[in-house]
Amino acid sequence: MRTLRRPLLLALPLLAAACASGDASHADAVLPLLSGLVIILIAAKLGGELATRLGQPSVLGELLAGVVLGTAHHFGLPLPDIANDPIIDQLARLGVVMLLFEVGLESTVPQLLAVGVRATIVAVLGVVAPIAVCLAAGPWLFPEGGWTKPLFVGAAMCATSVGITARVFRDLGVTGSPESRLIVGAAVIDDVLGLVVLSIVTGMARAGTSGGGLDWKVPATAAGLALVFLVGAIVLGPRVSPFVFRASQRLQSPALLLPVALAFAFGMAWVAGRVELAPIVGAYAAGLVLERAHYKTLVDRGEHELEHLVRPIGQLLVPIFFVLMGTRVQLWTFTSMGVVVSAGVLIAIAVVTKLVCALGTPKGQSALVVGLGMVPRGEVGLIFADAGKNLIVGGEPLLGPTEFSSIVLMVAATTLLTPPLLGWAIKRAERAS
Amino acid sequence: MRTLRRPLLLALPLLAAACASGDASHADAVLPLLSGLVIILIAAKLGGELATRLGQPSVLGELLAGVVLGTAHHFGLPLPDIANDPIIDQLARLGVVMLLFEVGLESTVPQLLAVGVRATIVAVLGVVAPIAVCLAAGPWLFPEGGWTKPLFVGAAMCATSVGITARVFRDLGVTGSPESRLIVGAAVIDDVLGLVVLSIVTGMARAGTSGGGLDWKVPATAAGLALVFLVGAIVLGPRVSPFVFRASQRLQSPALLLPVALAFAFGMAWVAGRVELAPIVGAYAAGLVLERAHYKTLVDRGEHELEHLVRPIGQLLVPIFFVLMGTRVQLWTFTSMGVVVSAGVLIAIAVVTKLVCALGTPKGQSALVVGLGMVPRGEVGLIFADAGKNLIVGGEPLLGPTEFSSIVLMVAATTLLTPPLLGWAIKRAERAS
Repeated sequence: MRTLRRPLLLALPLLAAACASGDASHADAVLPLLSGLVIILIAAKLGGELATRLGQPSVLGELLAGVVLGTAHHFGLPLPDIANDPIIDQLARLGVVMLLFEVGLESTVPQLLAVGVRATIVAVLGVVAPIAVCLAAGPWLFPEGGWTKPLFVGAAMCATSVGITARVFRDLGVTGSPESRLIVGAAVIDDVLGLVVLSIVTGMARAGTSGGGLDWKVPATAAGLALVFLVGAIVLGPRVSPFVFRASQRLQSPALLLPVALAFAFGMAWVAGRVELAPIVGAYAAGLVLERAHYKTLVDRGEHELEHLVRPIGQLLVPIFFVLMGTRVQLWTFTSMGVVVSAGVLIAIAVVTKLVCALGTPKGQSALVVGLGMVPRGEVGLIFADAGKNLIVGGEPLLGPTEFSSIVLMVAATTLLTPPLLGWAIKRAERAS
Repeated sequence: MRTLRRPLLLALPLLAAACASGDASHADAVLPLLSGLVIILIAAKLGGELATRLGQPSVLGELLAGVVLGTAHHFGLPLPDIANDPIIDQLARLGVVMLLFEVGLESTVPQLLAVGVRATIVAVLGVVAPIAVCLAAGPWLFPEGGWTKPLFVGAAMCATSVGITARVFRDLGVTGSPESRLIVGAAVIDDVLGLVVLSIVTGMARAGTSGGGLDWKVPATAAGLALVFLVGAIVLGPRVSPFVFRASQRLQSPALLLPVALAFAFGMAWVAGRVELAPIVGAYAAGLVLERAHYKTLVDRGEHELEHLVRPIGQLLVPIFFVLMGTRVQLWTFTSMGVVVSAGVLIAIAVVTKLVCALGTPKGQSALVVGLGMVPRGEVGLIFADAGKNLIVGGEPLLGPTEFSSIVLMVAATTLLTPPLLGWAIKRAERAS
């Protein structure tokens, strides 16, 4: 009797919620966010659990949980439209900023500089290879001729989205490995190169249309500013950070460490974004330059270690990013055979051309891990796809619906394929060593 | 030479940001949020520091920092428009949900039930007094006659906004005091009463206009659902919570405690919102029913204590709520003498009628602390003001611009007055005991 009554009683508050009038004119405006967060937190944990039990990095489970939620919403289940919620979108962006800040905290500037030359080789290879292959395969891929389209599609495959890779390394507890530092370093340089390529390619396509020459000032300025930021952050950051924390020690209020560190990270991410780098590059740089020695006095005053303070915020925000990415995969849009074939070719090129990066791997490190770690494409690929759809060349969009969908599917596939493949490669490398 | 060069070098990354083109077509959409958060975090810390040095609760400094930011933006300084940013608004709402969840965690259900009768007396007094005074003073306050307007204005003064008071208790480290529990308990009951009053008063005003009778079903349903939720939460919560954590222990993934607890808190806040209670009431109830015994196994598995995990999220989100409240004070709108006089009378009534609550204080507790703790009015007052402005009675809005502005100023004044007055009363009571 007791056991029967309890589930019934359990239902009471939920029943009260369900009975409440649907129009809810005085209902607090935060309710959609609350329900969205509850669903994301639970879906992420269940997906992560499933992935862990299958021996996969839990980020794969979070992505798939997103795919399930997005598909369920699309087919009419009464779930919130997470994929198009602007607040969830902003929290997700903040989440990946927090993730790269955390990853940055686990490394130091000298550790990054140590991989500098190798990371540059890996990054340059990873940018040159996709463009070269697309240009070479252009006549076969896009028979209607012209070099603008293959150049653009190749450029869309340049930029590595390091969030996925960073999470896989975290999930498997190997963030401190040399491969991890090499990939994140290469991704930072990649972001600068991708920025330059985007402004050159867009400029060339526009110049081709208008018949005028390419204005080199635009890409040169973009690259210059990005380099000033990166060099500034790495050279000056380690000098600024102790100064900031010394100044904040003069304050008497408790609980200073986290707000000061977050303001520093968000500020660096903002500056990176202003010079058109990805904000995550700035957040990573902030984590890189923040060293325990700078804020030791605050810890001595009884505050927790920075890593312990940052982690709970990441635990709330980071899964939002990966679940949201999953909801945007939109598997159901890929029903046309033409898209599937075209996307299949692009995916193959995308994977193979980043595996070429592995040629830059130094001795003693796993070339397979480095190559697979560079495979995921994210936002930047989608930005290219979007720019190409809106760029009118000879009276038509540069990228037609098939090419556009193929790039989107390429981004989705590299996102979903990387966690299992990279997880396998890391374990293989560990067994070998 | 070294000292001269350093500040110059420091300026480099900022210079790069400033030089970046303003249109920033590919700039990441998270940049406005990042800059908003940096400004809020820094302003909150500086304001809090100033308040602490002046012997005030740091929440006063956060509110005043918001007033300064809002005023500076209004007068054309190039600052983000925090007061009207929808993302900041949502994060602020999530912040006050986190605050009340934290406050709830510091108490238990038996502790709340122990103050139950007293809290009900305090709450009922605090609802009856403002309405009675406004109705009695009606002919003098609103000479154009009728009882609807004074009733509505009185009702707008009913609901206590417990966020401010909870923060003052936290700032002064007396969250566990009997006065603190009494006030939060009274605020919860207050919220139910306020909900009922709102639906009765709106119904009466509408019935007065249409000539029909008042439909009692609406307020009765609202009150019934709210009570079902509260009783359900308090009676069933302590049974559901161990069940939830026992179930989640079956998962193998690490870092379970925080996501499960947050899903529980956000879920309870959502249910409370669905029955038209304030979401913070649900979050407080969630904190109340969550006890260490329920999730002890997870802590034993090596996770941090829940309080330590929740606090960093609060450190990020809670100041957003108070700074945002400050930006919305809009001191510059109160330039008309009529509004200032009318608002002065309302503020006096608002403070005095909540001090009446102090009559419900049990022996051995400070009546002044309880009375002042009930003074702040927040969102609910503004919802009444807004509803009154949009309610057309006899062809005119029930509340004209003067009454509307006066209610807004009353909310602002009780918000800004409570921290210093309550801080003083708490210290006085501590000296006396």
